[in-house]
Amino acid sequence: MNQFPKGYQACGFHCGIKKAKDDLTVVVSDVPAAAAAVYTNNLFRAAPLVVTKAHLAQEGKAQAIVVNSGVANAAMGKQGIADAEAVAKALAETFDIPEQYTIVASTGVIGMPLPVEKINAGIAKAKDALLPLAESAEAASRGIMTTDTVPKTASATITIAGTEVHFWGMCKGAGMIHPNMSTMLGFVLSDAAIESPLLAQALSDAIGDSFNMISVDGDTSTNDMVTVLANGCAENAVITDAKSEDYQRFAAALKEVCVSLAKQIVADGEGATKLFAVKVLNAPTTRDAKTIARAVTSSSLVKAAMYGRDANWGRIACAAGYSGALFDPDKMDIFIGDLLVAQNGQGLAFDEDKALAILSEKTIEVTIDLHEGHGEAVAWGCDLTHDYVSINADYRS
Amino acid sequence: MNQFPKGYQACGFHCGIKKAKDDLTVVVSDVPAAAAAVYTNNLFRAAPLVVTKAHLAQEGKAQAIVVNSGVANAAMGKQGIADAEAVAKALAETFDIPEQYTIVASTGVIGMPLPVEKINAGIAKAKDALLPLAESAEAASRGIMTTDTVPKTASATITIAGTEVHFWGMCKGAGMIHPNMSTMLGFVLSDAAIESPLLAQALSDAIGDSFNMISVDGDTSTNDMVTVLANGCAENAVITDAKSEDYQRFAAALKEVCVSLAKQIVADGEGATKLFAVKVLNAPTTRDAKTIARAVTSSSLVKAAMYGRDANWGRIACAAGYSGALFDPDKMDIFIGDLLVAQNGQGLAFDEDKALAILSEKTIEVTIDLHEGHGEAVAWGCDLTHDYVSINADYRS
Repeated sequence: MNQFPKGYQACGFHCGIKKAKDDLTVVVSDVPAAAAAVYTNNLFRAAPLVVTKAHLAQEGKAQAIVVNSGVANAAMGKQGIADAEAVAKALAETFDIPEQYTIVASTGVIGMPLPVEKINAGIAKAKDALLPLAESAEAASRGIMTTDTVPKTASATITIAGTEVHFWGMCKGAGMIHPNMSTMLGFVLSDAAIESPLLAQALSDAIGDSFNMISVDGDTSTNDMVTVLANGCAENAVITDAKSEDYQRFAAALKEVCVSLAKQIVADGEGATKLFAVKVLNAPTTRDAKTIARAVTSSSLVKAAMYGRDANWGRIACAAGYSGALFDPDKMDIFIGDLLVAQNGQGLAFDEDKALAILSEKTIEVTIDLHEGHGEAVAWGCDLTHDYVSINADYRS
Repeated sequence: MNQFPKGYQACGFHCGIKKAKDDLTVVVSDVPAAAAAVYTNNLFRAAPLVVTKAHLAQEGKAQAIVVNSGVANAAMGKQGIADAEAVAKALAETFDIPEQYTIVASTGVIGMPLPVEKINAGIAKAKDALLPLAESAEAASRGIMTTDTVPKTASATITIAGTEVHFWGMCKGAGMIHPNMSTMLGFVLSDAAIESPLLAQALSDAIGDSFNMISVDGDTSTNDMVTVLANGCAENAVITDAKSEDYQRFAAALKEVCVSLAKQIVADGEGATKLFAVKVLNAPTTRDAKTIARAVTSSSLVKAAMYGRDANWGRIACAAGYSGALFDPDKMDIFIGDLLVAQNGQGLAFDEDKALAILSEKTIEVTIDLHEGHGEAVAWGCDLTHDYVSINADYRS
């Protein structure tokens, strides 16, 4: 059975932004929690990110989260900031917490004014709707969805010095998912006791190997944000040392939750029918391995070949070649599943039937071995399909 | 009437690589010509590029070009180099010219051995098939096609010190077209007399504003190359000074031919139904303007919105925001055609019917005004369509 982190309540329901689907999620911790966040690199950083970042900068703590879907509150200038602040204020007043303990997030159409009244009426309603995570987790994970077809959650339990510590996370994604944060929101809750700076470090490390290693369409959005709260309700001895085993265990569990969430986003990529992982081995550096893995998962031609079950290793080699990483192309081996299709940069006469069988699976692993150094990385992508085009040719209407 | 450059002969026909379509083109100049080329940045640089580059490095001169379509001779290791050299040798012997005066090019599937015998038999046949450009230009431009649906040519005539000088160019493209050279081959012939280093400089400048500013799908291929020959048969006074008006006129005409060819490639992008230009004005620098223009034309979401005739300016702003260029998002204006849709980084309540009418055209212009500096650039892209996915999900079969 799922063990949820202690000391959190949540709810998710329809507040009137979308026609009928759920569009509001509220999460509240019983006590102020250590908090950290990672934000999009897009110059057009949406208003809720600006407001949240200013809040977390004050004490590195948070106690309540409100997320609306349907409208992104992005590219709205000063009005956008004022609207995000109005929502934060309503959240703080409703739950009687300092405004700097609030996290606000929005996802949906860019350039439309935020329906503040509807959201704030929803926050008022949330006061009576909150339930422990065990009863509210699914509703909460539905309230943040946009073009997602399924809610996405992950959990983990670890033991720290004899005390059980729990993690639960939810996220939304689908289109616009690319390295460096995308139309992607992630929220991880833990009942661990950990100091804020260490929590920020653990999140940053986890993001680098999870949300930043996925690609749906190569676009990086204005609203992407991943936040983590750790409220200490598990009552473990507070984690204070980045070199301690406790911290390593905490960081590994957080990464595991983030990787699971990130992969779910790709698997549910707009129009996607397949998830494929690209593993790069023995690259000159880890950075090179990441660069290559991301270039291959982002290539429209590779993605279309995956859709077409085409063992077109030339496109994989080609994407690695233009990635910007430097390596010796004459040493590159490529595997599709466990089938070696190219060796020393040249194609082999491989078993096409076997390749077709591997490429007919829902999950495909491509391995690129550069035989140069010790750099390793994995990135995840989805196929490019007719449905992706259909969904995105007509998103606003 | 088209005035072709003097002193060139060409032919294009079927040599047996493809099932039925033309797959070989040969161009020969009556005399050795000044020659320059620009090559892909992909680490997997195909064998013909390696061989051609070595040849042109010797004297900066060339007299004959052979291009095959169907097989790219890429990622073939030492065999690929040997095959490209064998083709160059046959071309040199057949036309009795030094081997370093030959240019070899290939386009098609990566990782398949080059059918050298068929190509060399084609070269032997070419000896009797060559005709002046006026009679052979169209056949030549067909022999280099892959997934292109139409041949692509451009021409220009200028006067240098009282002497008429002519340009004619052909290219092929379609998929894999992206900044920094792509599955794209371009050949420009001129009868101007110009020194090789100046010709190289003029080509480099022209490429930066033409072939490097187009995007079909963001992938950069192994075989992309643009070459220019100037054989002096116009008998103008030799252009020797980069600051002279003659040089400026020559460079402007070369750029005009390259821009025309590049736009034809995008318009014929795989599955494309629309060409759209993104013009960036008043950016901090020209480099920023180019970076932004390319990011917007390369965005899958913008491309899908163009296909769907959706005036989704938020996606345009978003792509500019993640391009990597630094600018003030609160100063950005966006026009679709002549319709202002966003001002100072915020959306306006624009006339949706007018937007739909503009977006229903075959050619669309998007203008981004940053109101910061004097940097300007134009890039060209095509829409992302269901047909793009169909073509690329099943290319090898």
